Amino acid sequence: MAAPLRVLVTGAAGQIGYSLVHQIAKGDVFGPDQSLIMVLLDIPPMQAVLEGVAMELDDCALPLLKEVIPCTNEAEAFKDIDAAWLVGAMPRKEGMERKDLLAANVKIFKSQGASLHNAKPTCKVIVVGNPANTNALICSKYAAPHIPARNISAMTRLDHNRALAQVALRTKTQSKDVKNVIIWGNHSATQYPDVRHAKIQIGGEEKAVEAVINDEAYLHGEFISVIQKRGAAIIGKRKLSSAMSAAKASCDHIRDWFRGTKPGEWVSMAVPSDGSYGIPEGVVYSFPVTIENKEWKVVQGLSIDDFSRGKMDATLKELQGERDEALAACQ
Amino acid sequence: MAAPLRVLVTGAAGQIGYSLVHQIAKGDVFGPDQSLIMVLLDIPPMQAVLEGVAMELDDCALPLLKEVIPCTNEAEAFKDIDAAWLVGAMPRKEGMERKDLLAANVKIFKSQGASLHNAKPTCKVIVVGNPANTNALICSKYAAPHIPARNISAMTRLDHNRALAQVALRTKTQSKDVKNVIIWGNHSATQYPDVRHAKIQIGGEEKAVEAVINDEAYLHGEFISVIQKRGAAIIGKRKLSSAMSAAKASCDHIRDWFRGTKPGEWVSMAVPSDGSYGIPEGVVYSFPVTIENKEWKVVQGLSIDDFSRGKMDATLKELQGERDEALAACQ
Repeated sequence: MAAPLRVLVTGAAGQIGYSLVHQIAKGDVFGPDQSLIMVLLDIPPMQAVLEGVAMELDDCALPLLKEVIPCTNEAEAFKDIDAAWLVGAMPRKEGMERKDLLAANVKIFKSQGASLHNAKPTCKVIVVGNPANTNALICSKYAAPHIPARNISAMTRLDHNRALAQVALRTKTQSKDVKNVIIWGNHSATQYPDVRHAKIQIGGEEKAVEAVINDEAYLHGEFISVIQKRGAAIIGKRKLSSAMSAAKASCDHIRDWFRGTKPGEWVSMAVPSDGSYGIPEGVVYSFPVTIENKEWKVVQGLSIDDFSRGKMDATLKELQGERDEALAACQ
Repeated sequence: MAAPLRVLVTGAAGQIGYSLVHQIAKGDVFGPDQSLIMVLLDIPPMQAVLEGVAMELDDCALPLLKEVIPCTNEAEAFKDIDAAWLVGAMPRKEGMERKDLLAANVKIFKSQGASLHNAKPTCKVIVVGNPANTNALICSKYAAPHIPARNISAMTRLDHNRALAQVALRTKTQSKDVKNVIIWGNHSATQYPDVRHAKIQIGGEEKAVEAVINDEAYLHGEFISVIQKRGAAIIGKRKLSSAMSAAKASCDHIRDWFRGTKPGEWVSMAVPSDGSYGIPEGVVYSFPVTIENKEWKVVQGLSIDDFSRGKMDATLKELQGERDEALAACQ
């Protein structure tokens, strides 16, 4: 068996953390032959809960899990890590202003960016805590120079998976039959879920999703808003935010980053723009990417129509606004 | 791909259910080539939560999951199922007397036993909801005659996994290096975790756990009480009961039941006694079992010393008491 990977989950005492740590520890991300040391970080008041989660991981008797380290010291937690799930973030509390929320998160991700100087130079980071794109940007701005900006990403895979699921429901197929949906932009209500290049396996043939659904009003309207508002819809039902599906999507994201995308398929990841599709360099924006040898590459050459352009620019504008506010909060 | 299996999880809106449904749907139990239809049952007030869980399962975009059916109608839920996790049970509420608790659970499991007349005759059942052994006994007593009693079991695999983990922690090995611990009796504080026949892979050799630990006071004292009280210790830390590890153990239980135990290994399952080890026939008692062709068999011929005999009889006595009270509540 390969030398163990050291992986960090922040906010590990929270709900997403609880779903997530087991999925990672079981081998869903790094495969059945990769042993793991897992570091679970949270804030000091959560120490006992972290210990409880670590005890339960022990009680799962998982063959790949060499060690679980519950931890409330950030600098220690980041030491020598190969991968990090940054799940912990300041949630919006009643009466909190947007500016205060942003400032609180800037503080967290600035500090965690700095703590990345302890991480391995190959360390890959997914930011799950919201506002994920902007948190990733701040983390990357303050990250040690040995961690390239392209190693710090934000999660839009949950939105991507939701889009696969909605297409499957609409066409009475399964998610596995659908591929190459795209989430563009921000992991927020301005995101643009796009099926213009998506394919579906139906009746023994691969077809364009647009041709099979053949309903522009739905694809430009309800489809997009269902994905954009799915998080709120889940809260409406469960009275708790999505944890299982968020954890699963974050595992998909890191799994594909480490082990590659399938031939002919892309996935959505929020990464620092390389200027593709007119998105200014450096903005942490969700793109379709393929991954090989642990490096993502934005899919090139997709045609963008006017409808898409408008949606892509709107979510960009929101991201730029968030960035400016966040950077102002850094002063 | 094989025809889908239809599996039922009761109490699916609860905490264990939330950890469990994803593990099943992902293929952890029935393997990567077995598609699934999942029925999620809970009581009517939980309808919206169930729908939220089903939405999240959709959003996980799982290739094996053909359909998720949230359901609050018991008779419908049991229809044609191949396997059932009976997780939902009445939890002890403040001020509730033991007798009332038992009576409430008798009502649930009597009814679910009767609903099994809708299930496939090969249907395998694990009772997770406490008091698990007695709930399984009641379920089996009222089950349709086409479901053999041996198909209705209760979970002690969590205790089994906890025992593996404690041996591993004590010997600085991993759970995977330890095998053939035994949980005897009731899934309760009287259970008897026994390592007298357990083996450990250490320093390239297989050794007796007793010889490696070589501390009778620990094995007869602290070791047993840590396992017996582990559930309470987790609640002490998390302020919530074990969900992830309980879900994982229940998946291990059904996985091994469907796919067999490893050569030379046994696992613990609470099953109706066949009279082995002097345990009266019919009592739902946890034994070491091996499984082949989806049938469990109690491991025969293990030597039982006086210490073990005393512990095994004590937990039997508790089970008989529970049974008598439960049967009285059936009147």
